[in-house]
Amino acid sequence: MPDKVRIALDAMGGDEGASVVVPGADLSLQHHSDVEFLLFGDEAKIAPLLTPPLKAVSRLVHTDVAVKMDEKPSQALRHGRWKSSMWLAIDAVKRGEADVAVSAGNTGALMAMAKFNLRTMPGISRPAIAAVWPTMRGESIILDVGASIGADAEHLVDLAVMGSAMARVLLNVDRPKVGLLNIGVEEVKGLEPVREAGRILREAKLPGLDYVGFIEGTSIGEGVADVVVSEGFAGNIAIKAAEGTARQFASYLRDAMRLTLRARLGYLLARGAFAMLREKMDPRNANGGVFLGLNGIVIKSHGGTDAEGFAAAVDLGYDMVRYSLLGKIKQTLDHYVRTEPRVPAVGEVAT
Amino acid sequence: MPDKVRIALDAMGGDEGASVVVPGADLSLQHHSDVEFLLFGDEAKIAPLLTPPLKAVSRLVHTDVAVKMDEKPSQALRHGRWKSSMWLAIDAVKRGEADVAVSAGNTGALMAMAKFNLRTMPGISRPAIAAVWPTMRGESIILDVGASIGADAEHLVDLAVMGSAMARVLLNVDRPKVGLLNIGVEEVKGLEPVREAGRILREAKLPGLDYVGFIEGTSIGEGVADVVVSEGFAGNIAIKAAEGTARQFASYLRDAMRLTLRARLGYLLARGAFAMLREKMDPRNANGGVFLGLNGIVIKSHGGTDAEGFAAAVDLGYDMVRYSLLGKIKQTLDHYVRTEPRVPAVGEVAT
Repeated sequence: MPDKVRIALDAMGGDEGASVVVPGADLSLQHHSDVEFLLFGDEAKIAPLLTPPLKAVSRLVHTDVAVKMDEKPSQALRHGRWKSSMWLAIDAVKRGEADVAVSAGNTGALMAMAKFNLRTMPGISRPAIAAVWPTMRGESIILDVGASIGADAEHLVDLAVMGSAMARVLLNVDRPKVGLLNIGVEEVKGLEPVREAGRILREAKLPGLDYVGFIEGTSIGEGVADVVVSEGFAGNIAIKAAEGTARQFASYLRDAMRLTLRARLGYLLARGAFAMLREKMDPRNANGGVFLGLNGIVIKSHGGTDAEGFAAAVDLGYDMVRYSLLGKIKQTLDHYVRTEPRVPAVGEVAT
Repeated sequence: MPDKVRIALDAMGGDEGASVVVPGADLSLQHHSDVEFLLFGDEAKIAPLLTPPLKAVSRLVHTDVAVKMDEKPSQALRHGRWKSSMWLAIDAVKRGEADVAVSAGNTGALMAMAKFNLRTMPGISRPAIAAVWPTMRGESIILDVGASIGADAEHLVDLAVMGSAMARVLLNVDRPKVGLLNIGVEEVKGLEPVREAGRILREAKLPGLDYVGFIEGTSIGEGVADVVVSEGFAGNIAIKAAEGTARQFASYLRDAMRLTLRARLGYLLARGAFAMLREKMDPRNANGGVFLGLNGIVIKSHGGTDAEGFAAAVDLGYDMVRYSLLGKIKQTLDHYVRTEPRVPAVGEVAT
């Protein structure tokens, strides 16, 4: 690992581009002094925002090609390859000039470019996106939240391996508890690939993870598993349904506390507690999806976040590099391949 | 429609059986006077709980066979057919002695028995379970939340038709807004069957529903659609992730309000507002899954609910009968079959 964590930033990504990305980098620098930034984007917009001390640890590479938020991945690849800020940030990782790339741009385009340029790791057939899920016990990791749709048993096992490596990096646990998201806890229920993945994980007894069985949607927030594994469609739906519900609850609470004079007074009195609650529920803290399974680390920030949220995504990237995400994935993967010969995925069987 | 709504109750279902079911019926009777109950279960346990005025509108049929909460559907069918309280409640609907059956028992067993005994409606190949999702605009309906896994385009269209009929009954809207749950709002994203269902719904222009396109997990709680259509795996994950998040938030809030003396005082002052909030977030209000697509109405209550929650499930059943759910499904279905010849479902195509 290099002395400094070198972070490539797509300074044109997201709804706001440089005006969020640069202040975000600035905040992240306040969290870790051992970072360097490589910024890709419009010099005219970025340079004025680059003030000391950020300026001293940053290098700016100009491009005026941006990937649009609504571009299809194929379009983005066609017009943005080699020259867009998004491509250049990923390419810096490929060329070994950066350890991680962070972008708030179009998710589909970012994944397409990352796949095209970095390729999947040996032993991994499809990349995944992992997200942090705030739970009652701390944080869990959920994956895949939308890199691909559907999964056979082998892909689910790969997700378990990659997710547990990320949990070792992020949550500081030796053998993270891994659960398979399913629609019932009994062995009889759910998709055949999920059942098959459960069997493999149970029998493989991998040193890097502790398989705890099926878990239901209600249990994610309880933190019963450090890593929640799902194919990408249901995983995406799960995390977004939870986000929506948290927002809904926050809005109810706001309305309730404005309802009467007594409620307003009560709110004023309990202000400190409400501030803590807000901090706990702040979606910006959990900002950042980690692309897993590629020969390089790429972090996707929410497109609509602010500087603080973008800094959280940069911090996430920092942790992934500092604590050797890729090395930890390879370790478990090597062990898995050695101890458990890969079996062909089974098809779905009616039960 | 009969003068009275005749409700068959599985008085042995759920974690608590008769001690929740009978008081639940009592509460529901307070909400609607035009009901009659047919209770199936252990006479020794039920009879002492049956007090006037409930007793006057109830008939008790004894059985001592109960379906266990952890029984597999096939086991339940084998040992509980013809004689269990669950079967008898469904059978009362089949024989025309009741208009709706309500059970807090084992979901898999209830669906297996309902399917076996009531059969699917002409034109519907698979039944579904619909649930009520409390939103910021009121309530939406989400289906399927777990009756079956996976769906082709035709099944998704069936879900849209059935869900919109239920919305007309429950939400009192003429042309409910129907959205397809997907992992992106752009046309390019998501599963092929979801895209194909979107095309069919857009082109069919059914009089009973207003197709509004894809919706993401975050938007369900905003109430952008009256009916949210999904295959059963993702639908189940969505509603349970939301439930878990609501519980998590409630627990955070409770903890925060106990944290300091100021917070406790604030809580006392704002008690009224908190009570309203609690009422709004109370999961018992949304208790009850409606089995759709069968020749009869069956309602599944949460197994762990209390009398108030069970009453909500009974009330839901009441509404489905009183406002002719089955008739409304048939109407839309007839129109759909007439105007849009059923096309074979397409397979998944990589994009």
